[in-house]
Amino acid sequence: MRVLGVDPGLTRCGVGVVSGAPGRPLDLVAVGVVRTPADLPVALRLVQLERALEEWLDATDPDAVAVERVFSQHNVRTVMGTAQASAVAMVVAARRGLPVALHTPSEVKAAVSGNGRADKAQVAAMVTRLLRLDAAPKPADASDALALAICHVWRGGASARIEAALAKAHGGAR
Amino acid sequence: MRVLGVDPGLTRCGVGVVSGAPGRPLDLVAVGVVRTPADLPVALRLVQLERALEEWLDATDPDAVAVERVFSQHNVRTVMGTAQASAVAMVVAARRGLPVALHTPSEVKAAVSGNGRADKAQVAAMVTRLLRLDAAPKPADASDALALAICHVWRGGASARIEAALAKAHGGAR
Repeated sequence: MRVLGVDPGLTRCGVGVVSGAPGRPLDLVAVGVVRTPADLPVALRLVQLERALEEWLDATDPDAVAVERVFSQHNVRTVMGTAQASAVAMVVAARRGLPVALHTPSEVKAAVSGNGRADKAQVAAMVTRLLRLDAAPKPADASDALALAICHVWRGGASARIEAALAKAHGGAR
Repeated sequence: MRVLGVDPGLTRCGVGVVSGAPGRPLDLVAVGVVRTPADLPVALRLVQLERALEEWLDATDPDAVAVERVFSQHNVRTVMGTAQASAVAMVVAARRGLPVALHTPSEVKAAVSGNGRADKAQVAAMVTRLLRLDAAPKPADASDALALAICHVWRGGASARIEAALAKAHGGAR
């Protein structure tokens, strides 16, 4: 199973693709960050993000997309941009008929480190170890996107199959 | 100038199209509400909204799109869906090269009623009067979308031209 993880954001949107299956070694497919210029109107930043994510999907051909679930208790200044970026990621994936899963930051931290309150450094260290990398991917958004993808590979299974069936029934006929 | 106003939401997204120019009578072109089922995953609701808004743009061919600016101090339970729906509206418009403007609820209320703290009923009454309708469009989301469009027609001018130039430079080459 190949999963594209998205740590949504307008200034920096982390994207990480991992392949693997529960109980098997994981492999890094690709990782990076999509940036959009802060001086551009939000509508145009969202269009740039949409195009970049389309290119990521074309290039890496994932079976599913995992997006961080955004909560409104986050930083009030940035939460709107994060929610809007997550919407673009969800639409780009779902309209291709790809299953989209949302995982909370706690779920992701617990999945990769065993501790739902792990800090950024601990998550990055585990991502580095689990993917057998020489160094932690930077910036943190890239590492977080990989952690999301790993979380989804491990949590996958039943919920992913239900999402895929729903996506096929409602989303993919474009 | 023909403006499509969007009062963003996942459960009910108001859409209203108005034509007119500052100092001239306004005309209603079309008004309605896009609904998406609450029992569907958010990603699929956003895809349905995207398709519906594409159809609105195809059918009404506006010169600009005005979207309500979402603030995080709104109802915490619904603000994420509102922010995500607004992102879809912005992307759908901007990737066609249409200028997208964001207006706050206070700006809209002040534009149509002269009072930035006007209540829903007052805004609906002014929309009804300004568009010479027999009755207020319902639900309130539809009326609010028309108020946004009216606000944009009246505030249009310079800011709309700047947005259009930016959209042409950055957004339309898809």
